[in-house]
Amino acid sequence: MEIICVGNELLIGKTLNTNAQWLAKRITSLGLNVKRITVVGDEVNEIADAIREAVQRKPRFVITTGGLGPTFDDKTLKGIAEALKRKLEVSEKALEMIRKKYETYVKEGKMESVELTPSRVKMATLPEGAEPLPNPIGTAPGIMINVQGNVLIALPGVPQEMEKIFEESVAPMLKKEASELMFFQTSIYSHGIVESALAPLIDQVIHNNPHVYVKSHPKGWGKGMEIHFSTTAKNSTTAKNRLGKALIQLSELVQKNGGRIKLQKKTP
Amino acid sequence: MEIICVGNELLIGKTLNTNAQWLAKRITSLGLNVKRITVVGDEVNEIADAIREAVQRKPRFVITTGGLGPTFDDKTLKGIAEALKRKLEVSEKALEMIRKKYETYVKEGKMESVELTPSRVKMATLPEGAEPLPNPIGTAPGIMINVQGNVLIALPGVPQEMEKIFEESVAPMLKKEASELMFFQTSIYSHGIVESALAPLIDQVIHNNPHVYVKSHPKGWGKGMEIHFSTTAKNSTTAKNRLGKALIQLSELVQKNGGRIKLQKKTP
Repeated sequence: MEIICVGNELLIGKTLNTNAQWLAKRITSLGLNVKRITVVGDEVNEIADAIREAVQRKPRFVITTGGLGPTFDDKTLKGIAEALKRKLEVSEKALEMIRKKYETYVKEGKMESVELTPSRVKMATLPEGAEPLPNPIGTAPGIMINVQGNVLIALPGVPQEMEKIFEESVAPMLKKEASELMFFQTSIYSHGIVESALAPLIDQVIHNNPHVYVKSHPKGWGKGMEIHFSTTAKNSTTAKNRLGKALIQLSELVQKNGGRIKLQKKTP
Repeated sequence: MEIICVGNELLIGKTLNTNAQWLAKRITSLGLNVKRITVVGDEVNEIADAIREAVQRKPRFVITTGGLGPTFDDKTLKGIAEALKRKLEVSEKALEMIRKKYETYVKEGKMESVELTPSRVKMATLPEGAEPLPNPIGTAPGIMINVQGNVLIALPGVPQEMEKIFEESVAPMLKKEASELMFFQTSIYSHGIVESALAPLIDQVIHNNPHVYVKSHPKGWGKGMEIHFSTTAKNSTTAKNRLGKALIQLSELVQKNGGRIKLQKKTP
């Protein structure tokens, strides 16, 4: 599974990439793995390159965010068309979604005209074979497109719209894919032991617990270390047993080596 | 210029990628362009792939963050060695930096032993030809390595250490490279005009102002639109003239089309 974020605002540091974190967290909680996140600017070639490269690695899903709106610098659909060598064509289904949106806006007094201007038609001009995904709170639909048996999904960059389309149209698909696998995690906090002394202890625990991923995060001098344990399992009993075993082993090792362990928040 | 961030915590959404934003903002303010940001996990192959691909695009600089510490899952140096097909070897210069660090820690009573354990030596085991960059506030040095005339830089993932090494060892190099070019930006806020009506107006302004980049960011229903103007120029007078001209043109167009413009914060 890969994520591609499109937007110059991310490359100049104007915007913090909260979309990538949100997607990564949701996808992980559904039991799937994100292998790579790529950020590119609003250039058709850059977008097409990133998509072509991702698709060639053959992940089951590629999800893009950003660049689906009506303005000149929304270039993701062009980028997808170029990457997949497909024509862009007006999707009647997408056009209908957009037309209905504007009808509602006019009824609500938010807008004056339902006219399908070129900017509005642009949002319905999709790569051949793309299926529009309804956008319940904005105008630009998401899209879904089959690529050699795998799935490419494009979502808008406005966080609320991206999240809403993801929950309604994408999450159910991913859930099905992940069958019953879920992601579980917990952290403990070590004090009085430095990272370079902790390293071989973690190595030992990793070796004894092949299904558990352990990673230390230094919190800065005197603030100790967060040690993060995670596993993917079919049910919470298995997950808790695995995490618990690894956690106890590491706690004992740390204490034997003069450190202290604090338990803190626990998130399933 | 490309950025590569290494860390499973980014791919599971545990950590928000503030390092990428910080680097992107600083690099942009120094007058250089970030073309791509890639996030990969703590796997030697994944890191090596991302570095190999970035280096093949021949940017002047590639900067990585994360994966330089003493623990088993700090794999960036291995990834670089694999990508560049170079041997890993203990750097006497890096080892000396680390030895001195531990001497200070012991003097300050933060640590008991100066012993160069395998975990500590690991941080000084660099790809052939790499130059260590001093880490003033942590243990793992950054590294810099010449790749066919371009420069690959690896920084730690702990934000304060990454920022400090960047400011002391990397920024002066980038500044030299960018000579006098600097990045300038400003935003205005439009109300009472929808994105699809604004789009052709922005197109027109872009067309008349080839040196100015204009991008609209919808803020959600009823909250209007942020319109962001940016340019790279040799001095602030040129930049302000350019941005001012584009800003006034767009404001007039928006008002002619029934919208309102609000000026807000202005950042040079």
